[in-house]
Amino acid sequence: MENNIQEFKPPLKEEKGITNSGNVKVADSIAVFAPATVANVVCGFDVLGFAVNEPGDEVIMRITNKPGITISKITGDDGRLPLNPAKNTVSVSVQHYLQSINRTDIGLDIELHKKMPIGSGLGSSSASTVAGLFAIKTLMDDNSDPAKLLPFAMKGEEMACGHGHADNVAPALFGGFVLIRSYSPLDVVRLPHPPGLYCAIIFPDVDVPTREARQIIRNKILMKDAVTQWGNIAGLVSGLFMQDIDLIGRSMQDVLVEPVRSMLIPDFYPMREMAMELGAVSFGISGSGPSVFAFTRDEETATLIIQKLQQHLTNININSKTYVSTINDAGPRVIG
Amino acid sequence: MENNIQEFKPPLKEEKGITNSGNVKVADSIAVFAPATVANVVCGFDVLGFAVNEPGDEVIMRITNKPGITISKITGDDGRLPLNPAKNTVSVSVQHYLQSINRTDIGLDIELHKKMPIGSGLGSSSASTVAGLFAIKTLMDDNSDPAKLLPFAMKGEEMACGHGHADNVAPALFGGFVLIRSYSPLDVVRLPHPPGLYCAIIFPDVDVPTREARQIIRNKILMKDAVTQWGNIAGLVSGLFMQDIDLIGRSMQDVLVEPVRSMLIPDFYPMREMAMELGAVSFGISGSGPSVFAFTRDEETATLIIQKLQQHLTNININSKTYVSTINDAGPRVIG
Repeated sequence: MENNIQEFKPPLKEEKGITNSGNVKVADSIAVFAPATVANVVCGFDVLGFAVNEPGDEVIMRITNKPGITISKITGDDGRLPLNPAKNTVSVSVQHYLQSINRTDIGLDIELHKKMPIGSGLGSSSASTVAGLFAIKTLMDDNSDPAKLLPFAMKGEEMACGHGHADNVAPALFGGFVLIRSYSPLDVVRLPHPPGLYCAIIFPDVDVPTREARQIIRNKILMKDAVTQWGNIAGLVSGLFMQDIDLIGRSMQDVLVEPVRSMLIPDFYPMREMAMELGAVSFGISGSGPSVFAFTRDEETATLIIQKLQQHLTNININSKTYVSTINDAGPRVIG
Repeated sequence: MENNIQEFKPPLKEEKGITNSGNVKVADSIAVFAPATVANVVCGFDVLGFAVNEPGDEVIMRITNKPGITISKITGDDGRLPLNPAKNTVSVSVQHYLQSINRTDIGLDIELHKKMPIGSGLGSSSASTVAGLFAIKTLMDDNSDPAKLLPFAMKGEEMACGHGHADNVAPALFGGFVLIRSYSPLDVVRLPHPPGLYCAIIFPDVDVPTREARQIIRNKILMKDAVTQWGNIAGLVSGLFMQDIDLIGRSMQDVLVEPVRSMLIPDFYPMREMAMELGAVSFGISGSGPSVFAFTRDEETATLIIQKLQQHLTNININSKTYVSTINDAGPRVIG
């Protein structure tokens, strides 16, 4: 089956310190940042996601003399991620890329610096994978469309969480809001968004494994609930194109997944009520949780929301991490 | 609950022969055309519809001296529609409107000229109802937003087919593509579309009552099919905003309703195959059927499709009516 990614018009990437001189490789090492992502976006279960400017992960990649991939260092993971290159999503997806260009003769060393929590519902593995793929593509002086990296990133996602979903890796790779219209064939559409939209993110430090968060979702649903849901996703997409923040807010309701997954998140509904009362445009679960997020019209409201919600979580003895960010429109970027 | 229809920016209506002079009523009779509509639009079951320029219905309305509504003539219905004003959708919805403005003292005579088949899946009752409501609003010199007519039109729809749906009346009233994001509260969004999109419509003259076409739809569906469907409606809405006819075509797939309703339509799949081979962008059921429609990029392809499909239906001894039209962007219009 043929994949359709032609709607995507990638923004020009700023490639600091890298000069393209014909086909000659011009750098032996590179550092890349790739953004965290919010999948589902409340009413777009499995088909929508967007990228934020903070948090994100960093990969440092060096070309070595010895063929094969090594992972020399991982920081920020509390020892939870494998250094074995056959089991790490970054090296596995990079290996798939190298196979596709017949360059498995290359030797690579990878450092992964996790700058965001693992298992948070913020696309942690996707950020690492995309950073790795963007690093190797840039090192290889490969100027082709970044969209070609998507299938390799999905391979990494499949290993990380058991499903080759694209609703985290696609926005991490392309930036902005991304619709996965279809998986078979793969059909990805990049969507616009209103300027000045802020995202408040709160990660309550409780354990919600992605696999289990998926398993509790019902296999069979009522047609009438599905109609409600696709009215809402159509409204959300319209609001993104129309830059109509009110419509975006009205449309971000989820009658199918949130009622189930919210049970895994401490005080989800009280937190939602607080956020909405503080002026949020919308509030919901990021990916499979436990992170939650709110859209706001300004930075002040987003900051107020993370402060109040963090205080609320502290009061019920739950640690949390919080972020305020605009939408990341560029995807991964070279940082050194 | 409050209704949200503020996204809709109604096009200026051309009101031939009617001069607004303050609050003085300036015409005693009026003739109005309202367009046929295609609801569902393949992947937007119960939430999407669009209007065409042909066919449509005509209502002639005269102010009389005697309070109350009479229906003096109905043509083109083969005697199937009631002349009793308490049972006719046009008079019932007009009566609701008159009650809302406290003008039940008015006397009205209505002629309804059906210019399209009844029970065809082309929004026949909606076209009549919207023509009647637009006629009385114009006669009353009521310059308020046409959106205020939508609830009255939905009352008519409820009487005609047992459900107060808006996916025919809203596009008949507003023109263009219309999304019903939510019914409770009512939230209607008007969508753009690519210029130069043609619609080929074929009505196979077989009986598919709307109520029965609704009853055969499953109440419970698989989550994975719902995900496919909302990926497609999000793709269709994106394609409409992006003027991307390829994306519109790829998105117009229905894994939930069409597989069931197509059984009520003679040779649905052979007709689809023929239309797609002749160059259609997409092909599907209009509303609850039995009419089918194809989008095309030009008039010639649309004409070819209706000719070949009509010939095919003739070969299997089924009469049909066919239409080729552009998208109607104006909704109802005064024609005399």
